[in-house]
Amino acid sequence: MIVSRCRRCGVNRAEVYLAHSNLSLCPECFTLLTERRVRHTIESHKMISRDDRLGVAVSGGKDSSSLAYILHNLYEKLDMVLIYVDLGVPEYSSHCLKKVETLAKMLGRELVVYSLERELGFTIGDVRGTIYGKKPCSACGTIKRYLFNKIAYDLGLTKIATGHNLDDTVEALFNFYIEGNVKSLVRLRPYLPKTHPKIVPKIKPLIGLTDIECYYYAEYKGLPIRALECQFSKGSRSVRRKELLNTIVEKIPSFKHTFINSHYKRILPLLEQALKSQGQGEETEIYDCPICGMPTSLKGMPCHFCKIVNMIKGKVEVKVS
Amino acid sequence: MIVSRCRRCGVNRAEVYLAHSNLSLCPECFTLLTERRVRHTIESHKMISRDDRLGVAVSGGKDSSSLAYILHNLYEKLDMVLIYVDLGVPEYSSHCLKKVETLAKMLGRELVVYSLERELGFTIGDVRGTIYGKKPCSACGTIKRYLFNKIAYDLGLTKIATGHNLDDTVEALFNFYIEGNVKSLVRLRPYLPKTHPKIVPKIKPLIGLTDIECYYYAEYKGLPIRALECQFSKGSRSVRRKELLNTIVEKIPSFKHTFINSHYKRILPLLEQALKSQGQGEETEIYDCPICGMPTSLKGMPCHFCKIVNMIKGKVEVKVS
Repeated sequence: MIVSRCRRCGVNRAEVYLAHSNLSLCPECFTLLTERRVRHTIESHKMISRDDRLGVAVSGGKDSSSLAYILHNLYEKLDMVLIYVDLGVPEYSSHCLKKVETLAKMLGRELVVYSLERELGFTIGDVRGTIYGKKPCSACGTIKRYLFNKIAYDLGLTKIATGHNLDDTVEALFNFYIEGNVKSLVRLRPYLPKTHPKIVPKIKPLIGLTDIECYYYAEYKGLPIRALECQFSKGSRSVRRKELLNTIVEKIPSFKHTFINSHYKRILPLLEQALKSQGQGEETEIYDCPICGMPTSLKGMPCHFCKIVNMIKGKVEVKVS
Repeated sequence: MIVSRCRRCGVNRAEVYLAHSNLSLCPECFTLLTERRVRHTIESHKMISRDDRLGVAVSGGKDSSSLAYILHNLYEKLDMVLIYVDLGVPEYSSHCLKKVETLAKMLGRELVVYSLERELGFTIGDVRGTIYGKKPCSACGTIKRYLFNKIAYDLGLTKIATGHNLDDTVEALFNFYIEGNVKSLVRLRPYLPKTHPKIVPKIKPLIGLTDIECYYYAEYKGLPIRALECQFSKGSRSVRRKELLNTIVEKIPSFKHTFINSHYKRILPLLEQALKSQGQGEETEIYDCPICGMPTSLKGMPCHFCKIVNMIKGKVEVKVS
């Protein structure tokens, strides 16, 4: 039997093959290189500074669990707290909560849990019957983005790290290019800086790692990750688009990496320059939501979060936050 | 048996289904609408004027045969000549020549035939053994682009029409986006104007039609089209990429049309603006080739065509043009 050896250490048996770099690695070298790649992403974008107070958005999934674990190991002395938003998806949310509780204990880090039902009196399932009924993932995304920012702001955190990986980013880029959605193309960055006193900067340290790399990392490190899928995301456009991108990768192994590099290095700088000279730079006007007081791009109207809450209010009684 | 009727005339049986427009059409309505779409492309880009002397690059394939036929019908009085470059591919080139001869007779239009072997003493097969040996399609493209321009220039033609269709364009765009090849992205247009006295403007009237639409059109009109594939293009990257794009279309039926529209309407204008403000507009420096005197982007060096000819000269004796 031929045993292929790790390309890096030359000793252990290779278990992971990275097609984009044509590298076969043993679990130890793979996890080490993965951590180094994340550190490289963080340093090259100056994502984290010593005096940061970091919130890590965790979900119980492979990406955010790997993120929290890697950040904890790379920056042991960093002030860091895990944040979990319990959306009240039957079975799924409580299952995920157990995983993030185990993870927090494992790392010895504080976990902040925000329960939609406890705080606002409804669950994500209540979007059924509203115009978001057929696309709960969209409403869920808006709610999570809002709450992670609000929680971090209320806690006085200086940054929020999310587990968005290469697959997530390429999927979004691919959609925005097809749609010609230039504004979203320009906004999709590894580091979103502070553009308003109430907006906490966001960082995406895993933007260089594929779905499968995050999965292997979590597995090899024995991290507690969920065994269930969210019942609402089944067959969602996002899931189908990711499958399509993997079909492309079968034909063009470097597709995700080349495409994202070309975007960030060659095309994005030109798009930014052109928008800037048209006076449509990234600094879009920001207003205060008349309901919650948080920042919004909508002038004189409730923010997207409050809109969703209002819609659900028509169905169930919602506590005023 | 349920017979689906043509969505346009409501009388004839529908035979063609256009997924991008969700239209089922009979052959007559399909060919009529196809011609109208081509006329719309021509008019919206002001591709042709009454006093043009047009050269149509024909290959014996479905695209260029449909192109010549449609142009002949739309602009009966236009001064128009068909141009065929015989590259000397065994069996294939003579087979294609017969088809374009039949087409020219059918339309009553003059056919100019340029034989690589007769004029320069070599055939495209002679690139084997040079650095182009493994990618003859690349050398072939360079040779054809050069010769169509040279022939049209020598004949005093004012424009060259080529059969590039939607699939060709989306394939090129897709590659350029992945590679971040901004210069080529900006150069890929339906209408390439005159940028030098010896450069004949190029137009692509079929840029809105898919491969399969061109095929159906040629079939329904009974046009003489080749039954062979070029032996050198088998398994080429271009062929594989087109298959991949069709896989994407299976998941996103409007992909090709939406992507190309987004590119031309939303993204290209911004890229052009940014390049212009960097002083890197489309007007790149043009020099005279020291060998043939035709325009080239290479300063003080033989043009790409002469380079290839020189390479082959090392192998076979090439007549001086």
